[in-house]
Amino acid sequence: MGSRQRELQTLAGEIAEMGGLAERLVMESVTALTRIDPARARRVIADDQRLDAMQRRVENHAVELIAAHRPTDKPLRELVAALRISSDLERVGDLAKNNAKRVLAIEGRAHPPRVALGVEHMSDIALEQLKSVLDAFTSQDLSAALDVRNRDDEVDAIYTSIFRELLTYMMEDPRNITFCTHLLFCAKNIERIGDHATNIAENIHYLVTGEQPHEARVKADTSSYLPSSFSETPPGSA
Amino acid sequence: MGSRQRELQTLAGEIAEMGGLAERLVMESVTALTRIDPARARRVIADDQRLDAMQRRVENHAVELIAAHRPTDKPLRELVAALRISSDLERVGDLAKNNAKRVLAIEGRAHPPRVALGVEHMSDIALEQLKSVLDAFTSQDLSAALDVRNRDDEVDAIYTSIFRELLTYMMEDPRNITFCTHLLFCAKNIERIGDHATNIAENIHYLVTGEQPHEARVKADTSSYLPSSFSETPPGSA
Repeated sequence: MGSRQRELQTLAGEIAEMGGLAERLVMESVTALTRIDPARARRVIADDQRLDAMQRRVENHAVELIAAHRPTDKPLRELVAALRISSDLERVGDLAKNNAKRVLAIEGRAHPPRVALGVEHMSDIALEQLKSVLDAFTSQDLSAALDVRNRDDEVDAIYTSIFRELLTYMMEDPRNITFCTHLLFCAKNIERIGDHATNIAENIHYLVTGEQPHEARVKADTSSYLPSSFSETPPGSA
Repeated sequence: MGSRQRELQTLAGEIAEMGGLAERLVMESVTALTRIDPARARRVIADDQRLDAMQRRVENHAVELIAAHRPTDKPLRELVAALRISSDLERVGDLAKNNAKRVLAIEGRAHPPRVALGVEHMSDIALEQLKSVLDAFTSQDLSAALDVRNRDDEVDAIYTSIFRELLTYMMEDPRNITFCTHLLFCAKNIERIGDHATNIAENIHYLVTGEQPHEARVKADTSSYLPSSFSETPPGSA
């Protein structure tokens, strides 16, 4: 194996390490949320800084390799994909951090039982997506990456359903409003983590084939389009 | 002027063009929101695709120049800053698009008068920040960039105040809940547009000086930390 190949492998290793930390931050932020555990939330907020530092390191490293070797074709795409994927993972960390901050806001506030369960279920699926897409990146497995991309609808559909459920709790009792509003933002953050997993899947497609995926993905998060009475079926074509 | 210098200027021109489009999308999305103008909202959603395409073009262009010229020091930083700033602008477009989608969701829904005024005021300031930071990028004006970075607290403080105001409307009348929830997400989107202006300011600092700004910025958006009774003063130290 040539030294350039080794350098690309080192970079891929750095991204895998970022991915592991990003997954952990998401998982811990949701555990902090379901258990209302402020100490855990504060650790997530602190650890996100490490992810930011790792992203800068991957960026420097990729740019150095582009300048040093003037790569073309696949080796160049590996470096561009490294830049893009590390940026997605850094933002996943930011979203986990935002969820953790909200744990500190809702601590001690009364709330309907089981209301965070939907968010936990949603995050299980988003984490599964993130884990699968990072495995697909390591193995450069195009079909596994496209599976992740096609399953993003699942996270979006759960988000739409949680959005409706939380609005119902808020309408039933105004005392739920502040808690449920924070939970809504947490759910939205997790939906966006799913979007980043999809972005990474699309970058694996680009990395392996040299092309961006053609067909525009149909979004199933219709909460932005909820009609006037949100008990109606949302327009799927939106 | 050497050909490399000309190429860097072309790239800076592409970013300025992206910035102009991003500003326009933000402005139009907020006008669509305050006037509840679905046709305008649909144009924002469609035009955001142009911004995405421009970002890919800047990225390709910057990567090509890094590979072609093996730049170091300031010329290299200009290319890295181009990569980062174009990514921030692309996300600003996504946030404007999300606001536009929410216009389609709240169309025809009754809402308290004047409730969108706070969001409009907030977006005026965020847009001013975006415009100033893009001017600072064009002129490589470090002190103007740092001014933008220091004024981000203003957008964050308005966001915190809007967050409270909207929660009050929701508690007063459950019929306001869906409308105000969408408006809350719009306000959060604009607050994040302010964050991207700040990121760009930090990249101008990096571009000009070669260093990331040292002091961590103190965040004034305390809505994630609102205490149990949101009529209390939020902890400023959070």
